[in-house]
Amino acid sequence: MSSRRNFLKTSLLSSLGIPFIARGAKKTKWKMVTTWPKNFPGLGTGANYLAKTVEELSNGEMSIKVYGAGELVPALSIFDAVSRGTAEMGHGAAYYWRGKHEAAQFFATIPFGLTGQEMDAWIRFGGGQALWDELYGKFNLKPFAVGNTGVSMGGWFNKKIQSPKDFKGLKIRMPGLGGEVLRELGATVVTVPGGEVFQSLKSGAIDASEWLGPYNDLAFGLHQAAKYYYWPGWHEPGTTIEAFVNDKALKALPARLQTTLRLGCEVASQHMISEFNARNSEALETLKKKHQIKLEKFTDETLKSLKENSEKVLNAIVAKDPFSRRVYDSYQSFQKKSAPWVTISEQGYSLARQL
Amino acid sequence: MSSRRNFLKTSLLSSLGIPFIARGAKKTKWKMVTTWPKNFPGLGTGANYLAKTVEELSNGEMSIKVYGAGELVPALSIFDAVSRGTAEMGHGAAYYWRGKHEAAQFFATIPFGLTGQEMDAWIRFGGGQALWDELYGKFNLKPFAVGNTGVSMGGWFNKKIQSPKDFKGLKIRMPGLGGEVLRELGATVVTVPGGEVFQSLKSGAIDASEWLGPYNDLAFGLHQAAKYYYWPGWHEPGTTIEAFVNDKALKALPARLQTTLRLGCEVASQHMISEFNARNSEALETLKKKHQIKLEKFTDETLKSLKENSEKVLNAIVAKDPFSRRVYDSYQSFQKKSAPWVTISEQGYSLARQL
Repeated sequence: MSSRRNFLKTSLLSSLGIPFIARGAKKTKWKMVTTWPKNFPGLGTGANYLAKTVEELSNGEMSIKVYGAGELVPALSIFDAVSRGTAEMGHGAAYYWRGKHEAAQFFATIPFGLTGQEMDAWIRFGGGQALWDELYGKFNLKPFAVGNTGVSMGGWFNKKIQSPKDFKGLKIRMPGLGGEVLRELGATVVTVPGGEVFQSLKSGAIDASEWLGPYNDLAFGLHQAAKYYYWPGWHEPGTTIEAFVNDKALKALPARLQTTLRLGCEVASQHMISEFNARNSEALETLKKKHQIKLEKFTDETLKSLKENSEKVLNAIVAKDPFSRRVYDSYQSFQKKSAPWVTISEQGYSLARQL
Repeated sequence: MSSRRNFLKTSLLSSLGIPFIARGAKKTKWKMVTTWPKNFPGLGTGANYLAKTVEELSNGEMSIKVYGAGELVPALSIFDAVSRGTAEMGHGAAYYWRGKHEAAQFFATIPFGLTGQEMDAWIRFGGGQALWDELYGKFNLKPFAVGNTGVSMGGWFNKKIQSPKDFKGLKIRMPGLGGEVLRELGATVVTVPGGEVFQSLKSGAIDASEWLGPYNDLAFGLHQAAKYYYWPGWHEPGTTIEAFVNDKALKALPARLQTTLRLGCEVASQHMISEFNARNSEALETLKKKHQIKLEKFTDETLKSLKENSEKVLNAIVAKDPFSRRVYDSYQSFQKKSAPWVTISEQGYSLARQL
């Protein structure tokens, strides 16, 4: 189409006094790469839901094609891919990027840290978003919270853990900071790709593995590979799921689509949290009633030791890096206020309900 | 503008092959009446946020003017006003409409019922929305969840409650089902308008009053009128805030604005929950550190008795009405699954964090 013809159109429309938005004319088509297998329950489907929501909210003016891990780039390359503009957008969790910067993991979850509701509140009202923007800005990215998986389970075990000593020599799959904490306690922390977890547990190659929560663990069949299902998930108390967008791609969007994208992330966030709460409740019942799984609670002694070692690991990280220190200070200052509120509200109430 | 001129425009545009949406041309202007005083913290401001979000998402195609309680119609007349089309939309909480139908209150909160996160999950994934649609449909209304205030505090007291017997003769302001439960225990439940609560407590005209949570209670100054701040809020464990829309007004909207409105409600929902979590945490700290309030926990014996009497009150309600029975069955079946999950996730974790 010649620019002359464009000019003609605009003039004609202006002369008619019509505020002109030819939305279909140049549809914005984006690619979103993800760290999840295509349609992975809750997470891959969460990415799909976000894409669908933005498309709906933009009335078809913008579409986002979702790529599962490895379809366009490998799972752990999506941060770089979006940073350099290979795709406009990514969907993952910030702790995957600690190789880029240790501070990243505070925007996903840390052992004995904030719950999902607290993460949401810290990001939106406690200064979290500004720090996250600052960090990802260094990589030409703008981050958004798009969901939370809630409190994880403590993992599947074929050996009982009755005291911190029982972690000594335990062969366990536990990525990230949780794994580092267990290493302090003498565990042999191994890397096992997701696809091999079931077989490794079943064969005895490993003694234990963390995964996620009842919804995903049931779908994955882990109850058929391990005896004990431990709680609570001290290592991942409320993992924020993120979307990040290439800076230039974001700025190139018309203002109304920038708004659509930002608010679409909020819609997806509310949806994912509710979905995990509903599906985890349902799956826990199935695991208990249909599969007679054995639920085990970590002892207080074990949890205390895990907490002490978590603080040790986190303090070592922030001691090395001023930005991580700033993020952790903000995070801890929020937690110091929110934990007492949780104690007398959610926790106080749910204990009362059980009496 | 003559229809001939409209026809001319459309023809011209079609001939240019432009998908034509003249959005500014007929801006949709709605009125939203609310049960809250204008700009009431969290709730009135939540209504404002919803209106602003819909306006932003529609790129200015739709605007919603928010009216505080009494500005257009009295607080408790908004349900009728929207039902008959005086305003297109309302913003309140479903338990205000129990005079219309007892079942309404299940869509706000009930004593010893679902928490905020559970309400969200029940409404979106547990069948709650369909039942709510069915109920409000009888009144030409379509309801949406637009937030949650979280677990309430148990109220402000000038007399200590150490056992259920201490409720006997207590003069307390406690509207709704909570008040009915306390009546079972011999309390004198009185109606005091919001504006007179402070003075009634201060003068000793009443011994106690529920209000909301730290954020609102601090703003209201109730710590200057009563000695003890009790927890947990057994009577309101997670109040869903609602918007409802007149059926005809909704159907008259173009499809894209119906989507905008529906998803705008989701955005507002996520925002309100996070805001209450953040502000309640902050305010609790202020109440403790600056005002040295005395936090008191209801004893287990008291809570057990409150729970038994709550069940009695609820069972009496649903025994009289088949629709209420259906709603309560759905609600309880959800709670039976979700409570065990909360026990080993949120509750299990927050207890572990405190060790």
